[in-house]
Amino acid sequence: MSTSSALLENAVEQLATLPGIGRRTAMRMALDLLRRDLASVQRFSESVRRLREEVRYCGECCNISDQDLCGICASPARDHGLVCVVEDVRDVVAIENTHQYKGLYHVLGGVISPMDGVGPEDLRIARLLERVGSGMVREVVLALGATLEGDTTCFYLHRRLREHGVAVSQIARGISIGGDLEHVDELTLGRSIADRKPYEQSVKR
Amino acid sequence: MSTSSALLENAVEQLATLPGIGRRTAMRMALDLLRRDLASVQRFSESVRRLREEVRYCGECCNISDQDLCGICASPARDHGLVCVVEDVRDVVAIENTHQYKGLYHVLGGVISPMDGVGPEDLRIARLLERVGSGMVREVVLALGATLEGDTTCFYLHRRLREHGVAVSQIARGISIGGDLEHVDELTLGRSIADRKPYEQSVKR
Repeated sequence: MSTSSALLENAVEQLATLPGIGRRTAMRMALDLLRRDLASVQRFSESVRRLREEVRYCGECCNISDQDLCGICASPARDHGLVCVVEDVRDVVAIENTHQYKGLYHVLGGVISPMDGVGPEDLRIARLLERVGSGMVREVVLALGATLEGDTTCFYLHRRLREHGVAVSQIARGISIGGDLEHVDELTLGRSIADRKPYEQSVKR
Repeated sequence: MSTSSALLENAVEQLATLPGIGRRTAMRMALDLLRRDLASVQRFSESVRRLREEVRYCGECCNISDQDLCGICASPARDHGLVCVVEDVRDVVAIENTHQYKGLYHVLGGVISPMDGVGPEDLRIARLLERVGSGMVREVVLALGATLEGDTTCFYLHRRLREHGVAVSQIARGISIGGDLEHVDELTLGRSIADRKPYEQSVKR
């Protein structure tokens, strides 16, 4: 694909670096941006540049934050004895949206994945152990994806956290709410049977 | 969805204005941009801003161009007696990629669509008639989409162009090359039967 404009060519090339965006979609985006008024495109361009230039990470939980301490870590209304370990910022947003969790977070910045060359030293694990070592933390909740890499990371974290004598839990795995048994994979269904709970306890909430 | 950072919130909101991008994908894009080095994100942001700020349109064919006259209109190797009318820049790219067309273009900037409030006066039709009126143009090829709006626009253009005594043609409609008859819709198949060509002529190229 070649266009008559180096400016357009360049913008398409840059837009195509976004995850999941091919050249055809990038071209559609570029033409859409061209149709907008100048101020709107400047706002768009600014927002992306400022995000990367001015971004800060919370000194406690490594979550994205505009201050040195994020809103969650700074809140006296949260349970500071509970720390939920997640892979990235998206997971914080997802858990916050459930309104079921009132503790703090710890954003690892990834999971252990030898295939991608990510080892424990590439994640913010030392900072987690430091937080736990301070004695403020009662329980660490592991909330990583139920993948091979997530499980490996949980196993590693559990071993490291045990040394600090902190309680370590993992979020429940089982069938989705609203889901048919018929469409659940065998691993999940098997796990949900093995992890069954007394009915009274299961319907409590 | 609410995040702990106004910067992130703002970038996600802006990325979600791109066509076909929802908030979830925009969040994935923002986190991807955050992981890149600063210079790469600045290049990204710059390319979009410059596209909109510095873009120019060819004075002849209204195609996007970095000069006053685009490379196609400026080329002596192209047939200046042939003008292909297209909806937008994407179509120029698509036709150029076929390497089958050696004439010039005219980018309308849309098609007539009363539903979207687009009338003939919103398109670059006056400029097309001016070009045809100069006497240099031998044939106008209508290459608009085979939609209701495309057909309406072709009908309108044909009527206006006829006054100038120029030959008007339309690109062929029929079954796709490599396509099964079974999967072709009835309208297209019917049209391809009505528009059949002598076999010798059909396999010539």
